[in-house]
Amino acid sequence: MKQILVIGAGRSTSSLIKYLLDHASKNNYMVVIADMDIEMAKARANNHSSAKAVAFSIEDKELKKQLIQAADVVVSMLPASLHIKVAKTCLEFKKHLLTASYISDDLLKLNDEVKKAGLVFMNEIGLDPGLDHMSAMHIINKLREEGHKIVLFESFCGGLVAPESDTNLWNYKFTWNPRNVVIAGQGGAAKFIQEGRYKYIPYHKLFRRTEFINVEKFGKFEVYANRDSLKYREIYNLDSVLTLYRGTIRRVGFSRAWDMFVQLGMTDDSYILDASEKLSNRDFINLFLPFHPTDSVEIKLRHQLKIDQDDIMWEKLVELDLFNPNKIIGLKNATPAKMLEAILAEKWKLEPTDKDMVVMYHKIGYQTQQDDLKQIDSKLVVLGENQTFTAMAKTVGLPIAIAAVKVLQGIITQPGVQLPITKAVYQPILDELAQNGIVFTEHAVPYEGYE
Amino acid sequence: MKQILVIGAGRSTSSLIKYLLDHASKNNYMVVIADMDIEMAKARANNHSSAKAVAFSIEDKELKKQLIQAADVVVSMLPASLHIKVAKTCLEFKKHLLTASYISDDLLKLNDEVKKAGLVFMNEIGLDPGLDHMSAMHIINKLREEGHKIVLFESFCGGLVAPESDTNLWNYKFTWNPRNVVIAGQGGAAKFIQEGRYKYIPYHKLFRRTEFINVEKFGKFEVYANRDSLKYREIYNLDSVLTLYRGTIRRVGFSRAWDMFVQLGMTDDSYILDASEKLSNRDFINLFLPFHPTDSVEIKLRHQLKIDQDDIMWEKLVELDLFNPNKIIGLKNATPAKMLEAILAEKWKLEPTDKDMVVMYHKIGYQTQQDDLKQIDSKLVVLGENQTFTAMAKTVGLPIAIAAVKVLQGIITQPGVQLPITKAVYQPILDELAQNGIVFTEHAVPYEGYE
Repeated sequence: MKQILVIGAGRSTSSLIKYLLDHASKNNYMVVIADMDIEMAKARANNHSSAKAVAFSIEDKELKKQLIQAADVVVSMLPASLHIKVAKTCLEFKKHLLTASYISDDLLKLNDEVKKAGLVFMNEIGLDPGLDHMSAMHIINKLREEGHKIVLFESFCGGLVAPESDTNLWNYKFTWNPRNVVIAGQGGAAKFIQEGRYKYIPYHKLFRRTEFINVEKFGKFEVYANRDSLKYREIYNLDSVLTLYRGTIRRVGFSRAWDMFVQLGMTDDSYILDASEKLSNRDFINLFLPFHPTDSVEIKLRHQLKIDQDDIMWEKLVELDLFNPNKIIGLKNATPAKMLEAILAEKWKLEPTDKDMVVMYHKIGYQTQQDDLKQIDSKLVVLGENQTFTAMAKTVGLPIAIAAVKVLQGIITQPGVQLPITKAVYQPILDELAQNGIVFTEHAVPYEGYE
Repeated sequence: MKQILVIGAGRSTSSLIKYLLDHASKNNYMVVIADMDIEMAKARANNHSSAKAVAFSIEDKELKKQLIQAADVVVSMLPASLHIKVAKTCLEFKKHLLTASYISDDLLKLNDEVKKAGLVFMNEIGLDPGLDHMSAMHIINKLREEGHKIVLFESFCGGLVAPESDTNLWNYKFTWNPRNVVIAGQGGAAKFIQEGRYKYIPYHKLFRRTEFINVEKFGKFEVYANRDSLKYREIYNLDSVLTLYRGTIRRVGFSRAWDMFVQLGMTDDSYILDASEKLSNRDFINLFLPFHPTDSVEIKLRHQLKIDQDDIMWEKLVELDLFNPNKIIGLKNATPAKMLEAILAEKWKLEPTDKDMVVMYHKIGYQTQQDDLKQIDSKLVVLGENQTFTAMAKTVGLPIAIAAVKVLQGIITQPGVQLPITKAVYQPILDELAQNGIVFTEHAVPYEGYE
């Protein structure tokens, strides 16, 4: 009986573990679910005859060795910085490893040893990174095989709320880590290339230089640029590409409204506010507005951001209860970003019956051997079923679960510390994903380059 | 014969060394001028019979010991991070030390030993920090002695070009380190208090929230907020103060124009531009503008920054030759800030006959025992004589030179690692400065608080 060890049983593992258990009995697998919180592990195990829940801390070296030694494949769903502690033990006992995180430099250093041991250390095999790599490389490689040259690659992804649960003016609720949303784009300019020219957008302009995209049946979305699009030039071997741009998807109007927070300085995570624990929502806004003995916070903010009387932007602020003088945020030694996160976390919380949605969109432009410019657009929309089997859990968890089984079955075998960009890896996974409802639609469209 | 050792003979030491030499013969002092560049040291020594030039590197421990052991007072004009290497040797041989830099944590750790040895380690005794401390504390302490309570303290300083040399549209030339001007305000929000309320201005709004000030005979200036005004609450013991604000002085219109660079992202010093060595001025601007196959850089910039046809802001950009496609900046691995600095350094260079100007302005509001609110404004303007005895060199160098002599004469004696905020220190120095043409004018004005 083969064993799959899943370390970490948090929110994002529901679909991952369900898939493994659904395939366990007929294949005679045992799925060992290890988490610091044994109740969480038990809930995921769900009394399944092929599941075993274990209380486990990554600092317990003895148990770590025991669990990994007994396993055939290890899936680490720990925070990214902890994977290395799992990886070294996997190497010691010659076990395959899968993670949904970016490959760290530490992990990459193990590559030679991992290869020599014939092990698969597969990373970046969740949603983003993960599905994006596989679905893009699927098209890119196909076009290359046909002799075309890739000249444009734009790729967008967003975790959003499903249309049926879209009930606020921002058309947004938190379906993933709120902190990442609040500090998105900080720490340097967004960089990308357009028609061979480098472009840089400073953080304070990022949310005003969006593009629109359209997804059939779901309507219009907007996209703001991710921080570093250029690293994909090397990863995808896109040396000849003239346009390379990655972005984050939001509903139209979100970014322009979010920019209000950016302009005021409320998303700053670089310094601590004085006496933050005493501040009400209203006090918090007022920190970023000029002093006046009698003018209201409202008129000062309208003036500072030039918000007209009839602008819906204003209603978006009001909806967040931002001007409430009695609501104390109550965080000690907090940065502006932390304070804003606390306000938004309450207002943009998913309700028990709410469903989420994941949208992914690639534009791949290419030049034929006859010098014609053509383009393929590839789109994916996944809707959550409920608060357990969310679109996020499905799109993060199914790729890694499928990959774990394929590794166990000897279908994915190429050794090394890697990400899923070779056909031998992504093709069987994409095929199996399609059977599980995660299907990209690909369409030829007129070339949309900029020249 | 007593010896004063001056380590470092750079641009800012001309007035400092001249003052020491002017007072050397009659007092029977020897001034030893030590610099890595012996020619520079010799130029400062100027064949004066009381001067001796020495070639010296701070890394030469043996010579450092010899020089310091032979001295009675040591003046360190090295970069701030190197003072500690001088300070430890001064402590070893029990010599007084003066610097014009902020007290570092390393230096502060020596305080107990310095006190025990009865030594004066005087810091922050240049222009800013230095003159600002002394001239402000002079008024603050006088008002306190009269029983008043300080409720408002605003303090501004700027290094500018003298009116007769003010020949460009920016009304600005570099009279000090250009880099500090380009990156001014970065690395966190500007913080201050107004009428008891904390206020924070994010960097990208800093240059649009200026105040105006007026200086008799010199006209109007503007002020943008310094990063941390609040530390002066503790240093000056201003616990009851309701308004505390420090700022940098520029000519009116500078900040609004500078904001164009900020908005575009051209002042960013946090990342390296790709292929920066190939970029022309025009390419550099275009990095921060959206791609378009035919629209010019000019129209894209006008649109991005909403610059009208008749706005003088445009002429300010043209004056800098920013749209030149043939002028290659030629810096490798440069940040945007480095590139901008290179462009400006050439255009805002002081010409050989140009003169500089230093402006300082304090507003000190107080409450009398009868609860009346009153205010004293204190202003200083110093003009440079030429490119050697600049206003900057005078205002940085004379306070430290005077202090060095007063320490040598046993007039300033209070031991410890300190800054010049006690009357026993600042009073004799301010009196002597006045005799050397550095005179603050103090006027009672109507209270200008915000409530």
